[in-house]
Order: sequence, then structure tokens, then C-alpha cells
Amino acid sequence: MTRSFQKLNEEKVFKDPVHRYIHVRDRLIWDLIGAPEFQRLRRIRQLGTTYLTFHGAEHSRFGHSLGVYEIARRVIDIFKYRNHWDDSETMITLCAALLHDVGHGPFSHSFEKVFGTNHEEYTQKIILGDTEIHRILEKQGSGFAQRVADVIGKTYPNRLVVSLISSQIDADRMDYLLRDAYFTGVSYGHFDMERIWRVMRTRDDQIVFKLSGMHAVEDYIMSRYQMYWQVYFHPVTRSAEVILTQILHRAKDLYQQGFRFKYLPHPLLKIFNGKITLHDYLKLDESVILYFFQVWQEEADPILSDLCYRFMNRRLFKYVEFTPALLDAKDRLSESFQAAGIDPKYYLEIDSSSNSPYDLYRPGEEGERQPIQLLMPDGTLHELSQESDVVGSITGMRRTDCKLYYPKDRILDLPKHSPHQKDIQRLLGI
Amino acid sequence: MTRSFQKLNEEKVFKDPVHRYIHVRDRLIWDLIGAPEFQRLRRIRQLGTTYLTFHGAEHSRFGHSLGVYEIARRVIDIFKYRNHWDDSETMITLCAALLHDVGHGPFSHSFEKVFGTNHEEYTQKIILGDTEIHRILEKQGSGFAQRVADVIGKTYPNRLVVSLISSQIDADRMDYLLRDAYFTGVSYGHFDMERIWRVMRTRDDQIVFKLSGMHAVEDYIMSRYQMYWQVYFHPVTRSAEVILTQILHRAKDLYQQGFRFKYLPHPLLKIFNGKITLHDYLKLDESVILYFFQVWQEEADPILSDLCYRFMNRRLFKYVEFTPALLDAKDRLSESFQAAGIDPKYYLEIDSSSNSPYDLYRPGEEGERQPIQLLMPDGTLHELSQESDVVGSITGMRRTDCKLYYPKDRILDLPKHSPHQKDIQRLLGI
Amino acid sequence: MTRSFQKLNEEKVFKDPVHRYIHVRDRLIWDLIGAPEFQRLRRIRQLGTTYLTFHGAEHSRFGHSLGVYEIARRVIDIFKYRNHWDDSETMITLCAALLHDVGHGPFSHSFEKVFGTNHEEYTQKIILGDTEIHRILEKQGSGFAQRVADVIGKTYPNRLVVSLISSQIDADRMDYLLRDAYFTGVSYGHFDMERIWRVMRTRDDQIVFKLSGMHAVEDYIMSRYQMYWQVYFHPVTRSAEVILTQILHRAKDLYQQGFRFKYLPHPLLKIFNGKITLHDYLKLDESVILYFFQVWQEEADPILSDLCYRFMNRRLFKYVEFTPALLDAKDRLSESFQAAGIDPKYYLEIDSSSNSPYDLYRPGEEGERQPIQLLMPDGTLHELSQESDVVGSITGMRRTDCKLYYPKDRILDLPKHSPHQKDIQRLLGI
Amino acid sequence: MTRSFQKLNEEKVFKDPVHRYIHVRDRLIWDLIGAPEFQRLRRIRQLGTTYLTFHGAEHSRFGHSLGVYEIARRVIDIFKYRNHWDDSETMITLCAALLHDVGHGPFSHSFEKVFGTNHEEYTQKIILGDTEIHRILEKQGSGFAQRVADVIGKTYPNRLVVSLISSQIDADRMDYLLRDAYFTGVSYGHFDMERIWRVMRTRDDQIVFKLSGMHAVEDYIMSRYQMYWQVYFHPVTRSAEVILTQILHRAKDLYQQGFRFKYLPHPLLKIFNGKITLHDYLKLDESVILYFFQVWQEEADPILSDLCYRFMNRRLFKYVEFTPALLDAKDRLSESFQAAGIDPKYYLEIDSSSNSPYDLYRPGEEGERQPIQLLMPDGTLHELSQESDVVGSITGMRRTDCKLYYPKDRILDLPKHSPHQKDIQRLLGI
Repeated sequence: MTRSFQKLNEEKVFKDPVHRYIHVRDRLIWDLIGAPEFQRLRRIRQLGTTYLTFHGAEHSRFGHSLGVYEIARRVIDIFKYRNHWDDSETMITLCAALLHDVGHGPFSHSFEKVFGTNHEEYTQKIILGDTEIHRILEKQGSGFAQRVADVIGKTYPNRLVVSLISSQIDADRMDYLLRDAYFTGVSYGHFDMERIWRVMRTRDDQIVFKLSGMHAVEDYIMSRYQMYWQVYFHPVTRSAEVILTQILHRAKDLYQQGFRFKYLPHPLLKIFNGKITLHDYLKLDESVILYFFQVWQEEADPILSDLCYRFMNRRLFKYVEFTPALLDAKDRLSESFQAAGIDPKYYLEIDSSSNSPYDLYRPGEEGERQPIQLLMPDGTLHELSQESDVVGSITGMRRTDCKLYYPKDRILDLPKHSPHQKDIQRLLGI
Repeated sequence: MTRSFQKLNEEKVFKDPVHRYIHVRDRLIWDLIGAPEFQRLRRIRQLGTTYLTFHGAEHSRFGHSLGVYEIARRVIDIFKYRNHWDDSETMITLCAALLHDVGHGPFSHSFEKVFGTNHEEYTQKIILGDTEIHRILEKQGSGFAQRVADVIGKTYPNRLVVSLISSQIDADRMDYLLRDAYFTGVSYGHFDMERIWRVMRTRDDQIVFKLSGMHAVEDYIMSRYQMYWQVYFHPVTRSAEVILTQILHRAKDLYQQGFRFKYLPHPLLKIFNGKITLHDYLKLDESVILYFFQVWQEEADPILSDLCYRFMNRRLFKYVEFTPALLDAKDRLSESFQAAGIDPKYYLEIDSSSNSPYDLYRPGEEGERQPIQLLMPDGTLHELSQESDVVGSITGMRRTDCKLYYPKDRILDLPKHSPHQKDIQRLLGI
Repeated sequence: MTRSFQKLNEEKVFKDPVHRYIHVRDRLIWDLIGAPEFQRLRRIRQLGTTYLTFHGAEHSRFGHSLGVYEIARRVIDIFKYRNHWDDSETMITLCAALLHDVGHGPFSHSFEKVFGTNHEEYTQKIILGDTEIHRILEKQGSGFAQRVADVIGKTYPNRLVVSLISSQIDADRMDYLLRDAYFTGVSYGHFDMERIWRVMRTRDDQIVFKLSGMHAVEDYIMSRYQMYWQVYFHPVTRSAEVILTQILHRAKDLYQQGFRFKYLPHPLLKIFNGKITLHDYLKLDESVILYFFQVWQEEADPILSDLCYRFMNRRLFKYVEFTPALLDAKDRLSESFQAAGIDPKYYLEIDSSSNSPYDLYRPGEEGERQPIQLLMPDGTLHELSQESDVVGSITGMRRTDCKLYYPKDRILDLPKHSPHQKDIQRLLGI
Repeated sequence: MTRSFQKLNEEKVFKDPVHRYIHVRDRLIWDLIGAPEFQRLRRIRQLGTTYLTFHGAEHSRFGHSLGVYEIARRVIDIFKYRNHWDDSETMITLCAALLHDVGHGPFSHSFEKVFGTNHEEYTQKIILGDTEIHRILEKQGSGFAQRVADVIGKTYPNRLVVSLISSQIDADRMDYLLRDAYFTGVSYGHFDMERIWRVMRTRDDQIVFKLSGMHAVEDYIMSRYQMYWQVYFHPVTRSAEVILTQILHRAKDLYQQGFRFKYLPHPLLKIFNGKITLHDYLKLDESVILYFFQVWQEEADPILSDLCYRFMNRRLFKYVEFTPALLDAKDRLSESFQAAGIDPKYYLEIDSSSNSPYDLYRPGEEGERQPIQLLMPDGTLHELSQESDVVGSITGMRRTDCKLYYPKDRILDLPKHSPHQKDIQRLLGI
């Protein structure tokens, strides 16, 4: 049964630097965009701390979510033109595209590390729980919200719909590569999205790519690879992430030690004591975090206050490659830090990034394990790395980058000729 | 006497989407960028509430300030190549370019309207007061900070230096037109900046433009005009600005009436009671404001809480043209609002924008009164509007756009057949 | 009656720098593009001699014709979405868009000036005469070719269809402004084409523009104005055009005087003696012209050979403003040229360009006289210049640029202290 | 000894879509650009027959040559800023950059294949022979032209200068990747040229790249790879190239058989009989070739006339993969063609392209054998493929694409049920 969805009297558009215009023709989409839980994405940056490395990267998840919706909309239009698409799935797909990131909180990566929250769970809760988004979805019929949640949760029976939102080449990744490249200003991240759309074919419940478009797919894989190493894993960004994580660790530790905060907002308190509700979670945004990092500079704890000062004023940690030699020296380094009065628990941190340019099977990412299939002229499917020399040669390759972060300024400020300074400098090789 | 400034060992760059790279070669510039008062600009959006209209416009004053510096740097390079430049003014000019906006607070326009603060004054205070920026500047010699402040204050004796930072075609305007166009994604705002640089000549203490570059200057004037009307004065942005201003008004009124706020941060308290110090001011950024707007949704005062809800969730006021007929009906409209229980003081607001595409003399902007001069082949100067038909025809033209903002949802929610609803709808013509 | 047109099995695309991709879905369009008369447009530059000023402007009328087709196709899609379009007119419109320039010859402007040919007549002849294009069109039914010709000739009864191809804002102008800006590399010529499409409405048999899109239309008008003066009327391009025209004049004069050309190709011979057929005309392209200009450098006539040398090697004429004083001195100047052995008939030429940024009525362009109408919120139509201050202030304004072109090198090569040199220099003010 | 070169009174610029502006400050460069041998490059397309696949690729070698000059100029500026550059080499380098392609003829690839001409030899002859370019160079001192020729010939003692013009990352390749991407409109071909410039260091007589810029270099390598396969080796372009080569073969064969051409221009005659002089060669441009291809459609020889018709009207050959099975069937296929009256010598052609994305040693390209070296933080040099996983995994990989081209239309036009048609179709697998 195809439900009939209400059209807007007049198409609405958002000016978008990446897709020129985002087109909204359905009342349902318009209402979802207007929901407070969605508007909240304006206050959560798409790339977390990356703006401290690339100052242009101040864009929020709001624009990205619109972008994913727009790509899904355009791809569906192309599928419809080729009669490859079941139109009764259109609105489910568009809603899932729009809402796929709605559960993100501020600086999700660090929060999830420290507090064990999970933005994917919150996406489910926002769609299914006591929210305006849920009410808007359920107006389309009981169970509609659940179906949208299933698409995002990758349990939806129509795998084609799931693939559009979550696969190795999905609307999400296509938008973020182009958008993050645009706002950072880097020259990586560009690929011929329209050509990829044109060579997309549906095969059973899968999206495959005509062989003639293989180079566009290769180019996308390489763009993704470059964006990971040049932008997403940039060591300066990771340094900011390290400090942010240490702030959260310190605040949590202090809370558990009964420290009396001058400033402690309700939602953070709840997250510290593990009793956070959906309602509390929705109040968390980057303004809250940045406000508290600012006022925590005045807290009595010198570690918390120093780390907050560092984050707010971009006094980041420096880094050295974490070599096997350093691994051996780790304990001695910690001792020297301790002896010099610099708590290694908060001021000495190993951070590791690792990524494959292309993997047949990406371990640990259930549901995204589908390799990219090429549709050959004879109608058979060949896995990408068998046809593409470039992708073939890098398949399974895994690159890891491991760095040790530390406050160089503190080391340099140690009393001259202090034995700790010398030790630390020698161990770090600086 | 030419002071010698310390060079960095290795040039540093910032990736910038507008200028590709921002190049920093001087220790002084690098240190200023690192100062907390400058890093704070990362937390103040370049275009205030515009992101609620153009979702891409989330960029901060940090990037713009770097951009103005970079333009000044490149123009000076061109002037040096032509031997038109006194190199002893270079560092003064670059510092002024970088710091010209450092006094901006969050949503400056509304704050200045409600509290009478002035970002230009704060720029002076930050450069001259007890700040890290001041200390960095004074390391270059006593009085250096004052000279930078004089350039920004337009009292510096070398008018050429002042012109580069503040004139009808200055580094500030060139950067913001290009940058705001880039981040909003609009197609206006582009002009051939490099051509303008190439036709710039210095004449006495003035920047003039070779006649052969007149069209590039015309194009700049028209771009500016389009950006004003299409972006800066967009009625939806102004609606957000109206609500923001009303929040501040209401909070101030409540404070003066002795209302007991659940949440009231120190710096806002100080601004309410008129005792704000430079130190307090520097703590004000958009995180603070957005955090308090969020928590004020829980304050007991229904007007404050409603206005904050509106701002945070983009439930903006609608608008009608403010016609002479409406002017006559203003009092009756206020009465109907009052009668319907909607306080017109906060819910009925006239907002007016007005701009000239080009003026020989822009009244009220002391120091920017210089008309644009073209350098003729015979060496004489002709004012732009005499030579350019297009600019000539629009010189002195002033366009005004006046709108009345009101909460349409509240009107529609009034009891059906309520006489107030009908009256209001009739008076507003909706 | 709606004819049914054959679709291609698979959509074909052309990669296009301006529109990303040109999409072809109809067999008819595909066949027309493949016709020799259309492929011939690859050998005729879009901007004639402009490549001698802007070296990027080497693009041909082939790409432009595809672009006009693509714009028409997209606009029709939008009209169809809004149910504003009679689908039985679609193929007629697309064919007319594709073929509107098919009658252009090499350097049309100069040819038409010297030989009285007319590219619009040839467009009609190619569509209606003994050509492959005609045969392809007539396969769609007898009279189909005539209808396409009528659209291009502006006599087609459906004025809406005519407007899409020929009006103040039509697919032709939209494509060439964007395309010529792209290939020359200038920053003028950009406007928000998609926004213009979105605010287009049909009203009776006319295309009108919603008031809310007025600024996009203003921007288009100003872009057009800048492109005219910065690119199309560039004095260096005009100098090349002057020389080209003089070559044709000289060759024609020589032919009429019975000069024995070493090289004279059949189609040029026919054009000289006024007996050119459609078949001959179709052989004329820029290769032919450039080849003959090359070999004519070896003809015995020194004027022809010199002018050809100048054109091929970009030894252009210089220019001075043609002032009223020069008008008075014109005869004396001619005499001095004659006395100095430089034939003023070929070496002294006045060239004038004139353009209005916007005119309610463009005199002499029958069928394009329609002013631009804005659709007001109340449903009435207002002419653009009444609503737009900027357009209003320039309406009817006419700018003229008149220059005198001459071979400066010849003047400088005259014997030193020759009285002619001095006279000429004095009269020209050089 | 540093010669002093004359500066222009005022810098001249060319508007360039790729580099925004090309800046000329030296009289010598200006004069070279004006020389007829250089202006001739306007009549030779940068990408030969590629415009028949990508209609935007109509740009000439003129713009590319300016672009290579401009890149060299800017890189030298950066080297000068870092005191890495011997300024006495500047003009030599700029001249070599500008003139490196000046010996190209029309459709060089095919001409060289059929007639054994060599554009590199002609570059040397133009610089050293009886040309205006030679005279302009020699004005700078005797031997100056020889030094420029040596740089282009890679025999110049200063290897750094040679590297800037000819190496794996040189000004030539950087310009053509960006330029060809721009004009074709493809999204490949972009890389961060300015970052590459910034990480360039000179080491002994070699250009090396700082490790921190490795990703930019990787991106360049991948862009180059994509451009080769997506643009330069596009099978449709190669089909046009095959036809063009067959035209030249046929014309040469006919000439040698004593065929009486209706049309045969002097320079082609000379190339047929192997007696071409530099003076003749300089007359060969694409206008000449296209003109003769046009008129040769009227020659009595049906093969020559058919091939010319195909080229002019883009009736290209189709292709199938040249598999080992086809290799076995090659003789039978030839026989069937012969039997069907289609001369396999001209109508059945194998064409093969092959390319490595990156090779330590590119066989056969003397002087470009230098691998790319990265400068490590410790000052040592590491070859790129040792450090870059991506480049490492593709190093030495060689991809070959071999296709068989044939006139499908002729096969389809054979009498139905003709045994030859069936045989051919079976053998070709179509």
C-alpha cells in the first residue's frame, strides 16, 4: 500500500554551498527540519575539534543532514526515471537520510569514549521516544517511525533502502566528503558524484555500479582516503581531541571524588552520575560544553582549569611518533612526568588512527560489510578490487598512525638543568 | 627608523577556502593569532543570526580576520613591487588588519542596540588595555600598540595605511564579501579582487584606481549591493535579530524589575547593571549567550521563555511590509495585540534596513567619506560616479526596506472567531 | 495531438564544464547532434576573434548549442513539475534550442558586414533545405522542420516556446554568459541561473519572474552588462575584427578588380561573386578562412598580404578614442595616411560599440522587445525597471564607445622627421 | 655573470582561467609571446582529437605554454624567497618553460607515427634556427638560445633548472593536468599545486619534497593516473586518432603510388616526399589539416574521401577489447573484411595504451628517470614509494588497454545474410 504524503503548496529551498539548493516538496520533511531535535544539530559541529586545525570547518551537522537528504532525493529521482525504484519507499528513505545523525551530541567521539554514550542509540531514541520528531513521523501512520529507525539501524527488510543510507558509497559519505572538503578548503574530497549516480544500478537488493563508471568509484575511494589522512586524522585535531577527552576524564574523576564544582550544569551532572535521560541529552550541545569549559577555567582544580584553558585558547599538546622505542620508555617517561609534577594520567596520551582506503570487509562495521560490486557488460557482478588495479593494490592495506601527545610548553618551562626536563627531552627525542 | 621584526624560522600557513592559504612569516603576527583575545573570535560568528537563513553561514570572525590580514599582506607586496610603499608601515598595517574586529562581541548588533556597548571601543581597549594582545604589541616597542589602535581608529597620520583597512574598497570589505558569499553559497559577492589590486595606485595619501580597472570596481560595487540586500538584510535574518533583541530587552527589563533569574551568568549581570569590565566582556561569546538562551527557556517569565524557545528552535516572527497605511494603524494594532494577550512591546516590532549602493559621502561614517577616485590616463583624478554610467546612475540612490515583524503562530492560535484575531488579520492584511 | 518520440535505450551524456553534464534521452536530439551541419559548429568559435584577447576563449558554437538545449530541457522539467507546460511542445522547443545558431558561419559578424550574408537566414535554410538536419526533423512528420524554424524565426504561435529561445532572459543568453565567462576566465558573467529558473512562471504566453527573484534577475542584467563591456566589446577584440573585415574587403575589392589570386577556394569565390549556395556555405568554417589567410600572406598584393600577416600573427591595430576633435580631423588624417603611403581605406577605421544594460524596448530587435515582467504577490505584473531601483536607474541608458583603429607600427616606421609622421602623431594625439 | 634583462614599463597580464592571471614583467618574455612561431600555437589544440570526446577540450597549446611559464615564474619566486635560487638562471628557465612545446605540429602524435617527424627536434630547430624566436633570444647575448635549447633538451648543466621543466612533477605536467581538467570539465586532475610548491626544496641539483607534503604529492600522482585513463586514453579519442592516422597513411600511400590529388598543399607535399624544411613545418597547423580533410572528401579515392568524411563529421570507428582470442582470429577477420570489400589495412586497427601511475624509472624517457624524493625531518632523502603506502602499492604496476577499432556502420550495411557480415560479427563478438 502506498501511503499518500502531503505536498507543500510551493517547493521550499535552502541555499546550500555544496548542492546549490536543497529542495523540499513534502510537508513531512519540512516539519522534521523544523523540529527542535533537528534544529539542535545547528549547535553541533560536523567535524568536532577540526576547526582548530582548519578554521573553515565550523559547519554543523544541520547542513550535512540536509545534504544527505538531498542526495537521497536526487538518486531516487534517477532510479525512478529508470523504473528501478519502489515509490512506496521514497518517504521512508528521505526521512532516514535526514535523520541518520540526529542522535549526535557535542564532540560525540570524546563523549562516547569517556561516558559510554552512543549516538546511534540516541538516534533510535529520538525517532522512537517522546519527541516532536516522533510525533511528526507517527502522523504518517502508526509504525512509520519504527520503519525509519529500522532503516537507520540497518535492520529494514528492503536492503536497497538501507544501502542508500549506509554502505561504502552512500548518501552520507558522499555528502560529508564534498561538504568537509568545501568548508575546510582542501582540494581533496572532490569526485564526480553525478557520474556515480548515473552508473548506479539496482541488482536484487543491492546498489551496484556499471563497469564504465569504475574510475569515478576509484576516484571516490581515493578521495575518501585522502580526506581521512589529511583532514579527519590530522594530528593537530587529534591533539585537541586528546585535551577534550582529558577534560571530560578529569571532570568525571573529580565528580566521583566529591569535588565541589563552582559550575556544573544539570545535563552534565546527569551524565557524570550515569542517570542521563533523553530529555537531558537533548539539552547537550556545543554551547553548553564550551560555556562550561570557559567557566571551569575558574575552578579550583589546577588540572581541570589548565586543560580548559588549553582547549579554549588552543594551547594544544605537541606530539611525537609513538615508536617501539617509546613504548619501551613509556614507564620511565611517566615517572619523569610525575617527578616533574606533570600528571601523566592527563598530560601524556597515546592516540592512534587507522584506516583502510578500501576493504572488502570492514571489520566491526556490521551492515556495511558489503564490498562494492561492479556490473559487467555481460550482466555478472565483479567485486571492485578485482577490476580496479589501483583499488586492488591497496585492498586490505591498513595504515596506522600512532602518536604520543604531551604539553611541550610545560616541559620547556621546567627549571633549566632540571634532571626531569633533560630526561623527558631525551626520552621523547626532542 | 625602521624597526626590524623577527621572522619565523619557517613560514606558517592556514588553509583558507577563500584565499587558498593565509601565509604568516612574522613572529608578531603568529603570536597575535595565538592570543586568547584573538582565539575568542572563533566563538563569534561573522554574520550573527544569518545562519538561521543561510545554513552555511556558520563561519566565525576568526577566519575573516585572518582573511583581512592576508589581503593586506598581498596588496602591500604589490605596492612594494611598484615601490609605492613605505616598508616601515608594513607591520603596523598587518596588525591593524588582523585586529580590526577583535572587539566584536556575540551578536554585536543587538547587544549594542540594547546595552549601548560599542565594538569599536572594545577593539581599542583590547589593543591598549590589560590583555595579551597589548603585551605582544608592546614588545615591539612602547607606543606600537597605540599606533595600531590609531590605524583602526582612523586617526593614524599615514592616510594610506588607514585606507587599506577602512575605506570604500578596503581589505575588510573585500574579504567579507568573498567570504560571506562562499559560506552562504550565494552567487553574488564575487568580483575580480586581483584585478582591483593590480589597478590600485597610491596618490598622495590615498588609494586610487586606474581607469582601466573601472569595470572591476563597478562589479565590486554591485556585488556589495547585492550582498546587502540578498544576504545581510534578508528579512528572515532580521526576524531572528528582532527576537534576539527582544530577548535582551526582556531580560534587561526583568533584571531592572528585580526578577529572580534561575540562571544569570556573571558577565551578563555586569552588562545589565552597566558595570561590565574589559575582563568580563572578553568572556562574552556566542556559547555563553546560546547556553543562557537555552536555560532561560526554563525561567518563570513566559515572555522570556517563549522568546528564547523561538530563537533556539527557529520559530521566527513573520513579517509584512510596513506601509504608510500600517503606520496609521499601528496604535490600533498594538491595542488589539494587548487585548489578545500578546504584549506588543516584545511581539510587534518595526525593523528597517537601508543602504546605498554607492555614495560619494556616506553620512555618519566619519573617515570613510572618501569617494572612490579613478586615475585617468592624463594623471588627473576623477570621482567614480562621473566616469561610470552604472555607478553614476545609482549614486545617492537610497533604498529602504521597512517591515513589521509579529508572531503569526500566536495570531493563528487565538480562539477562532475571536474579534482580536480578525482585527489583527485585517490590520496586517493577512 | 502529441506525437510520440523515440527514447534512446540508454541516456547519453556529454561532459560539459558549465552544466556538468548535457543529458540526451531522445533519438531525435541524438541524431541532430550527429548531423554534419551540426558537427560543423565545432569548427566555428563561439566568440570569433575574442581568443586573441582572452586566450581561453577558443570554445566553439558546438558546446554552446548543447548548452542552450540543456537549459531548455531543465527549464521544461521544472515547468512540467509545476504543470505549466504543454508537453506536446517539448521536442519542438528542444530542437529549436539546439539548432538556433546552426546557421552561423566563421567570423559571422565580419562576413555579414562585408558580404551581406545573414546567419539567421542560413539557420532557416539549414532546417528547411536539402540537409541531413532537415531529413532528420521531417522523419517526425511533415511540417515538423517548419515548426522548429518558426520557433527560431519567432513566428511560432506559442509565444512561450519562442520566449524560452529568444527573449531578454532566454536559454541562449543564459548559456552564453556562463559559458563565455567560464572559458575566458573572467569573474563577471556569473548569476544564479537555478534561482532564475525557480522563479520563472508562465503567464498567458509569457515568461514572467516572481518578485522574490528580482535580485537574481538584476544580477543577470548586470552580468550581461559587464560581459558586454569587458569581453564582447573589448577594444583588442574589435581591433582583430577590424583587420579581419579589412581583409575581406580587400580580397573582395581585388576580386572585383580582376586580381589573379594564387589561392582562392571555391566557397570564397562563390561568396565574392554573390552566387553562394547552401551547399557552399556549409563548407565555410574557420579552418578554411584561417588556411586562406595563411596562404594569402604570399599573394602579390601588399595590402592583402600585410593584413593577413597581421591577423595570423596578432600584429593588431592600436586605437585612440574617436573624439569630436578627431571627427573634424578625419579628412586631414586620411590625407596624411595617403601621403605617407598607408592606404586609409584599409588602415584607418572607426569602430563603434553601443549597448544598453537594460531596455524596455530594444530597438531593431523585433520579437525581443518584450520587457521583463515581475509577478507581484497580488498577481499583477510590473515591469522590472519599475520595481528594481538599480535597473530603473540604468534603463534606457545607452553607452557608446567609439574608437579609431590604425597601425601604430607603420606610423613609427615612417622615416624620422617625416612630416607625415609628425602630422599623424599630432592629429591622433599620440 | 648575471645579465640584466629589460623590464617592461608596466607589467602585462593575460587573463587565464587556470592561474587567474599570467604576469609578464620582462621585455624578452613579451617579445617571445609575440613571435609568429609562438602565436602559431593558437592554431594547435592542446589535446589533439580529444575535443571529439570532450567538447570543451578545444583549448590550444598557446594557453598551456603561458601556463607553464607562469608556474615556473611562481615557483622561482618561492625559491627566491627561501634563497634557494640562483637568480642568473631565472630568464633561461622562464624562456625554456614558455618554449618547451613550441615545436609541436598539428595532431603531433599521428604525424610523428606516419611521417617520423619529431616535435622535440622541431622545438630545438625553432630555438636555434632561422626564426624570430631565435633572433629575440640571441639579442640577450650570443649562446643564450643554445642554453634555452639545452634546458629543454635536458642537457643543461644546472639539473635544478632542467627539473623545473622536465621531471615527474614539473611545471609542464602541473599545468596540463589542471588545464585539461578545467577545459574538459572533468573532476579529476585537481590537486593542491600551491601546497606542492610550498613543500618543494632544492637539494644539490634536485627538487625534493618535504615529507609533510607527501599527501599532496600522492594526490598529484593519482590525479595524473585518472587523467590518463579518463581523458588522455579515452577510447573515443583514440578512435578519432586511428582515423586521422589512417587518413595520413592513405594520403601518403596514394602520393607514393602517383595519385593525382585535386588538392595538395605545399607543406603536405613536402612532408610526403620527405623534404620538409623548418619554414614549411611552421606553416602546418590544424587549420591546414582540417581544410584539406574537408576538401579531400571530394578526392576520387573512395578510401581517402570516406576517412576524411568520418573525421570531419565524427563518424568514428567502434571498438572491441582486443583479447587473445581476437589475436588468433586476426587473420580470418582481415580476410573477411577483404572479402566484404572493406580494406583491412585502413579499416581494422589495433590501438594500445599503457601507463604506470608511478614508476621509479620510466623506461625510454631519458632524463625523466628521476624518482620522486621526499625530504625526511632528519635531512635524508627517501624515495616516494617507500614512504607512501598508496604509491608503494601501485609502483611498477602497468596497466594496458588494447582495443580493435573498426567501422561498425560498414559491417551493418553489408547485405543482410551476407556470409561476411555474419563472420565478422561472430569474430568480433558483436
